[in-house]
Amino acid sequence: MNMKISRHCTARQGKLTPSNLKSVAFTDGFWASRIEANRRVTLPFEYRLCKQTGRIDAWKLDWKTGQPNPPHIFWDSDVAKWIEAAAYSLTTHPDRQVESLVDSVVDWMAKAQANDGYLNTHYLAVEPGKRWTNLRDCHELYCAGHLMEAAVAYYEATGKRKMLAILCRYADHIDSVFGCEKGKRRGYCGHPEIELALVKLYRVTGEKRYLKLAQYFVNERGRRPHYYDLETRARGNDPLINYDQYQAQRPVRELVKLDGHAVRALYFCSGVADVAAETGDRTLLAACKRLWRNVIERRMYITGGVGSAHAGERFTFDYDLPNASAYAETCANIALVFFAHRMLQIEADAQYADVMERALYNGVLSGVSLDGKRFFYVNPLAQHPESSRYNRWVTERQKWFGCACCPPNIARLLAGFGQYVYSQGPDEIAVHIYAQSTVRFEVGGRTVQLEQRTEYPWKETVQIKMNLHAPAEFVLALRMPGWCRNPQVKINGKSAHLQAVTRKGYARIRRNWKTGDLVELTLPMPVERVEAHPAARMNCGQVALQRGPLVYCLEEIDNDAHLNDIRLPRNSQLTASHEPRLLGGAVVITGQAFRRNPAGWNNRLYRADQSKTKSVTIKAIPYFLWNNRKPGEMRVWIRE
Amino acid sequence: MNMKISRHCTARQGKLTPSNLKSVAFTDGFWASRIEANRRVTLPFEYRLCKQTGRIDAWKLDWKTGQPNPPHIFWDSDVAKWIEAAAYSLTTHPDRQVESLVDSVVDWMAKAQANDGYLNTHYLAVEPGKRWTNLRDCHELYCAGHLMEAAVAYYEATGKRKMLAILCRYADHIDSVFGCEKGKRRGYCGHPEIELALVKLYRVTGEKRYLKLAQYFVNERGRRPHYYDLETRARGNDPLINYDQYQAQRPVRELVKLDGHAVRALYFCSGVADVAAETGDRTLLAACKRLWRNVIERRMYITGGVGSAHAGERFTFDYDLPNASAYAETCANIALVFFAHRMLQIEADAQYADVMERALYNGVLSGVSLDGKRFFYVNPLAQHPESSRYNRWVTERQKWFGCACCPPNIARLLAGFGQYVYSQGPDEIAVHIYAQSTVRFEVGGRTVQLEQRTEYPWKETVQIKMNLHAPAEFVLALRMPGWCRNPQVKINGKSAHLQAVTRKGYARIRRNWKTGDLVELTLPMPVERVEAHPAARMNCGQVALQRGPLVYCLEEIDNDAHLNDIRLPRNSQLTASHEPRLLGGAVVITGQAFRRNPAGWNNRLYRADQSKTKSVTIKAIPYFLWNNRKPGEMRVWIRE
Repeated sequence: MNMKISRHCTARQGKLTPSNLKSVAFTDGFWASRIEANRRVTLPFEYRLCKQTGRIDAWKLDWKTGQPNPPHIFWDSDVAKWIEAAAYSLTTHPDRQVESLVDSVVDWMAKAQANDGYLNTHYLAVEPGKRWTNLRDCHELYCAGHLMEAAVAYYEATGKRKMLAILCRYADHIDSVFGCEKGKRRGYCGHPEIELALVKLYRVTGEKRYLKLAQYFVNERGRRPHYYDLETRARGNDPLINYDQYQAQRPVRELVKLDGHAVRALYFCSGVADVAAETGDRTLLAACKRLWRNVIERRMYITGGVGSAHAGERFTFDYDLPNASAYAETCANIALVFFAHRMLQIEADAQYADVMERALYNGVLSGVSLDGKRFFYVNPLAQHPESSRYNRWVTERQKWFGCACCPPNIARLLAGFGQYVYSQGPDEIAVHIYAQSTVRFEVGGRTVQLEQRTEYPWKETVQIKMNLHAPAEFVLALRMPGWCRNPQVKINGKSAHLQAVTRKGYARIRRNWKTGDLVELTLPMPVERVEAHPAARMNCGQVALQRGPLVYCLEEIDNDAHLNDIRLPRNSQLTASHEPRLLGGAVVITGQAFRRNPAGWNNRLYRADQSKTKSVTIKAIPYFLWNNRKPGEMRVWIRE
Repeated sequence: MNMKISRHCTARQGKLTPSNLKSVAFTDGFWASRIEANRRVTLPFEYRLCKQTGRIDAWKLDWKTGQPNPPHIFWDSDVAKWIEAAAYSLTTHPDRQVESLVDSVVDWMAKAQANDGYLNTHYLAVEPGKRWTNLRDCHELYCAGHLMEAAVAYYEATGKRKMLAILCRYADHIDSVFGCEKGKRRGYCGHPEIELALVKLYRVTGEKRYLKLAQYFVNERGRRPHYYDLETRARGNDPLINYDQYQAQRPVRELVKLDGHAVRALYFCSGVADVAAETGDRTLLAACKRLWRNVIERRMYITGGVGSAHAGERFTFDYDLPNASAYAETCANIALVFFAHRMLQIEADAQYADVMERALYNGVLSGVSLDGKRFFYVNPLAQHPESSRYNRWVTERQKWFGCACCPPNIARLLAGFGQYVYSQGPDEIAVHIYAQSTVRFEVGGRTVQLEQRTEYPWKETVQIKMNLHAPAEFVLALRMPGWCRNPQVKINGKSAHLQAVTRKGYARIRRNWKTGDLVELTLPMPVERVEAHPAARMNCGQVALQRGPLVYCLEEIDNDAHLNDIRLPRNSQLTASHEPRLLGGAVVITGQAFRRNPAGWNNRLYRADQSKTKSVTIKAIPYFLWNNRKPGEMRVWIRE
């Protein structure tokens, strides 16, 4: 096999490249502890569950008709995401045992792969002969995409080429089946994912066919005659009409709103952004920006959660952001990070990093318990524990799900967290996320090491120290967070004039940097009361408390039941204080509020007399930490 | 056939008896126009739909396997409710054409009835041999009950005995199949209804077996071993565990909360109250009161709507009263009227009449359009029109439903409205509902005619004039509405001292009444801001506007979009004024409120700056009139 493997970087790519995972280290601090819990607890825990539920052994293809537990259509993706997470972890923490677990799965994969390169446990074992007959519903290309992502990550972590070769063969097979050329199927997956995966495969192999295939999948989606009509009729069924669930109501360049299943929508946008970055296609980039704006200006929870409806796990309509019934699937919130991160590499605009940070610290981190063993599939912004009995809404994090997309997704996000913090351009280093860490870059052939010291997001100061063998001129682009009204930067003790150098939310400090240079940021973090747009009807008359990047919530355990009845006057002083023993140490917000007295109603449900209120002290904790103590009411938006 | 038919009244019955339909006339005014629209438009309209959809012709039993549109398990009940409505209408408005429509169905019924008395179009035509095999789900006894109610009503309206005789035969058959005796099935219907119907049949025929059978159904429900387990296993299936959906989690005397499907729950309570009234069983009456309190103190919308969850059409948990996703099925709200009305006859306590009035004027009347041709199945207290696309929530009234229980239910309620206004005790006449009307009673062998003149609920005065051939001493019991803080009564121009004579919300005026005596009530109707209990979390910080018995709402057509953003300060003056051209003439409420400016947000979805507000005039219309102009937002609870 003649497989060219190289880190491929063309001029058409975005301005920035994410830092290489190998070069980033989280020593201690906020993220280090989450990444550590992910590595020590979540990864082995999830492997065990993949094993117990049959997902690992499915690769042996020994399931026989009539046996219980047939390999499900999306099982391959669960294992793939676990391998990807393991690979990221191996990058910084080599572990022979983990590596041998992956290798044995890869060995089964090699044996499972059909002669023509096809690879899918469900269709090979359960429905042979049915492959590619239901692209809309059956996740084949989606699973292929996740396997490709895993293969790239595992190759980059270990240098081992076996899995990558398997997936290149599979990609070649897919390329032979799908496309505009005569004799090929003009299909595309109901669940986007393969688009972004093929670009990853292209980047690591340099094989342009993979980029072209990604481009085909992006362009073909939503064209007429509609492929989903054709394949549905071919199966003898009536076509459905809700193409928008699959982002296939029309071609991407004609979409003005991001509709349908939120994970699909944002995986698709991520793939579109990748293709736009690689091809320089301005019409695609314009489509990305249009859809981006629609999401962040009208369809995103304050937690960075997306997709408000349980039915269809989907986006609904502009400003429709119900709190208790919020879906905001962990995978969708992660997918928003993916999309934001890709847009940020194309254009160093802090609006992308702001959203990425918002999602990471709130709607993504809420997806996993502090101990790393329990997961939210759905991330509501309000909860009454009794509601779940009747509405099947979330009450507590679960250890696993029949459709187990979220747990390994958060595992790969955390294991690969180093990608999101820094980027590099031709002569610039950008810091997107403030987090205690070190990073190495090559700038003009020289190694630059940055050391970031901070207790962010709890504290407002960040120190960045330069380590260089010799002085080097480059731009240090520091993100000035959108939530921060008055950021300050000192360089070697001297205040910098930020206004002059800030472009699109990044303070771009060009200097001939020397070792020992110290950049000190102060990002004042007063407690802010945030309002939502008047059209976001569920939040009218309410405020969310935010401090720095963290959105806060009230929990019953700190504030008693009937949280909705709490009223926080605009002039009430809010105090942030660090509680070292609370939930591993956290800054909480306290203040005086009012609530009515539930006594004295004499069993009346309604009355025309105005109720008296009493003063109470409220205590809010960061949203991502909710449901780590005991079940109960929770609420982000507080009445004013 | 030796069938004794008599109006049966024992000492054990409740204190009061509803006025006979024949003796009540609505001349003009609020209810006369609704009853007229019901008679002229709704009744023929619904017959046509029953005919078009196959419900009428199903009685011919000529459906054959393989044909489309087999008679559905609940079709019999739709036709039965239409016959009952037609019968009530015939009571006051004889109409040969309508009578012949009913007679022809009754003729088919007679032919359809099996030799043993069994009668159900679905099981006779579609599933012969399967009768009584799935009491929980298949509505057989429910349909039987509705047919009995129709038969009683049609007999009372026309004196014709044919349908009554058919249903007595069916009741006799049911009595031979069900009961505690050896060889009988110890079952009961998944959808209560037959209990109250059997009591009606007992009252009109005097046949005690029917009362005993009703008593059996009431007592057997929820006993162990659980009949639904036994019959489910007999069908080869696994038993379910949500007995509470069917009010069968335990016997009625042990129930402390009213759970499950709201219509079933309240039909059941109505039947239990009937059995309690007829038997004098205090433990049953105590159960009724316990369940009554649970509903009205914790589970009833301010509109008198009940059953908050779409899933299961059911009650959920105490104080769980979501507004936009409210189910509050028209049938459930009607069923609450049935239950309240029965409790009111047992005990002349205005709490029952207050709830009956609340439901009638709000959550029941909202179920039908002003023109009588469109129906709500579901009666939410807030609506955003785009929500319905994603949540399958209500947007507009429909002309019919696959499960068409609500349209004929509201038709029979309106046609039989005369039952709810007055009652009679041994030497008292009670007025529960103020409505322009006349009524005749026999008191001590003498005919008393009351003439009620009022523009209630729009205006606050009610005049009651006595017409008697000779003076008669009796108590005139006038309901002092719970919503009214300062009712006044004058008798022949002289103020009565209400406190001395008011008992349980009824001013009991004992006099030797003479013809021409005039009682004048004044029920001051200021606009009230009503609060909900602090545990009713969806309504915290909000008020509902109420004037007299009417609950008000804001509609988009009067107030522009984004209704949630409207804030009505406590000190804002609210003015009630009559608009003769609005929706057939209605009192509207106007006042000054505030809302934020949706402009100036610069495409931001969230921001930490406090928004400025602007003053706006709001206009609220009675809730029952909403959605009679054009679709749009609606909202009962308004932020304060």
